[in-house]
Amino acid sequence: MILPAHVTIREVLLRDGLQLEAPISLADKLKLLDAIAETGVREVEATAFVSPSKMPALADAAELSAQLYNYPDIEFSALVASPNGAKRALAAGLTSLEYVVSASDGHSRANVGSSSAEATARIEEILALARDVGATVEVIVACSWDCPFDGPTPEHRVLDIVRRAWEWGVDRIALADTIGTTTPRRVANLVAAVRSIVDDAPLGAHFHNTRGSGLASAYAAVQSGVTRLDSSIGGLGGCPFAPGATGNIATEDLVYLLRDSDIDVDVDLEAAIEAARVVQSVVGHEVPSALLRAGDRLLI
Amino acid sequence: MILPAHVTIREVLLRDGLQLEAPISLADKLKLLDAIAETGVREVEATAFVSPSKMPALADAAELSAQLYNYPDIEFSALVASPNGAKRALAAGLTSLEYVVSASDGHSRANVGSSSAEATARIEEILALARDVGATVEVIVACSWDCPFDGPTPEHRVLDIVRRAWEWGVDRIALADTIGTTTPRRVANLVAAVRSIVDDAPLGAHFHNTRGSGLASAYAAVQSGVTRLDSSIGGLGGCPFAPGATGNIATEDLVYLLRDSDIDVDVDLEAAIEAARVVQSVVGHEVPSALLRAGDRLLI
Repeated sequence: MILPAHVTIREVLLRDGLQLEAPISLADKLKLLDAIAETGVREVEATAFVSPSKMPALADAAELSAQLYNYPDIEFSALVASPNGAKRALAAGLTSLEYVVSASDGHSRANVGSSSAEATARIEEILALARDVGATVEVIVACSWDCPFDGPTPEHRVLDIVRRAWEWGVDRIALADTIGTTTPRRVANLVAAVRSIVDDAPLGAHFHNTRGSGLASAYAAVQSGVTRLDSSIGGLGGCPFAPGATGNIATEDLVYLLRDSDIDVDVDLEAAIEAARVVQSVVGHEVPSALLRAGDRLLI
Repeated sequence: MILPAHVTIREVLLRDGLQLEAPISLADKLKLLDAIAETGVREVEATAFVSPSKMPALADAAELSAQLYNYPDIEFSALVASPNGAKRALAAGLTSLEYVVSASDGHSRANVGSSSAEATARIEEILALARDVGATVEVIVACSWDCPFDGPTPEHRVLDIVRRAWEWGVDRIALADTIGTTTPRRVANLVAAVRSIVDDAPLGAHFHNTRGSGLASAYAAVQSGVTRLDSSIGGLGGCPFAPGATGNIATEDLVYLLRDSDIDVDVDLEAAIEAARVVQSVVGHEVPSALLRAGDRLLI
């Protein structure tokens, strides 16, 4: 079993982590971002440019984006769900877009009001918008394993999106377990199938810990050659259009697991635990982080 | 990656799960056992024959043992920590003993008041007591990866215990992550080393989810050829002599993960979730079970 020497963690607290929370102030978001910056993480998903009425917690996307120049060591990305969102993100100065396409029609319609095929077709338009200003586009395939409305997602639906996105020239692909149902063997199977399309390009994955197997799935992804993982400080997170969705895998729990597997990450464990403490005080409720409760193991 | 077709789950709720809880009545334990029996599980750790003053929640070990004949489809075992405990367990009619030996001196002294070497030497005596009445002995190596007092456990300490136990003819070996600190790669490394001693004999493992990686470690164990896993309905559990120890991996979460990895288990998922509901009502507080909160995935 050959594991990668390094895994890139993208911190998604400010977007996926906060989107189901009661809205917090811009000042509080910057406090969270300060704590995130202390961890040393190199990539941060800053926000989403989506309908403010649908996602009030992220309604300050442009205002937050205007503050990101203060963190020159971090590469920021923003999630978009339409060409219009892409335009807003690019206008706000973002140079790295994540475009989410659901592999299932049920979730796609709930999320963006159109079918999976219609959403897939928009990849080309979003890519053109990004290329005009020299920005990159990652396509994230939502519901890569299961959909809360349609049940298990047939593999060919994921592969069709990946194939078209890759042919159009998107910069990166990521597979998302939007409702936290997948398990290690299913992860290994799908990653192997996607790998045959994207060849040796960096591949990302995004897991929720809804059924307790988020870290097991993340490790299975890494065993299968995934070198990019999304996680959220404190394990916050969830999708409002995916019933039953709960927190992302917690950054600090992921860092602990990868460190002890001799896999290098950019995130410092103690700083991540401290950031989880900040998250807990800002959101005002307990967060599902194991390391925040238990602490690092004794390293005598 | 060849995974085993079947994994044996040993339900440890009644021992490890309850030992840190406030004592409950024998009637409540039988209510739990009824719910456990409904899951179809074939092996149950019923109790421990240890000092009642040290572990008041298990002080009714003999009384509970006297009721086990009512569950003829289940093979019951009991944990012992000394020859005296083994005598009590055998006198109570148990025919399957688990003898715990700590691989670290710090935990061994806290747990049984003697060094790891002294505890190891008692394996022979316990084996002789068991053999006299046709009972079996499994040696569980506590603190196989880390000790709360001594830090990381050197691999040779675990291998020394396993080698001696195996030479003396114990029936089975299991490796325990007593304080929930291990991670997949460490699991794979130690299992491979132990495998070279026990050859193709069934090997067990016992994980706590203290740092969120319990299921990831369990899956790594299975990938490495472990075919016996301990788990506790509801994810209850912990060791009073291991500061910071928390719940076992939850049976229902483990069953979900293994089922979706095409690994056969004896435990029915819906019955296990229902049993977790019973556990929660009996112990009177929320239990750390993901499946109890989230439910099975939609199987449309």
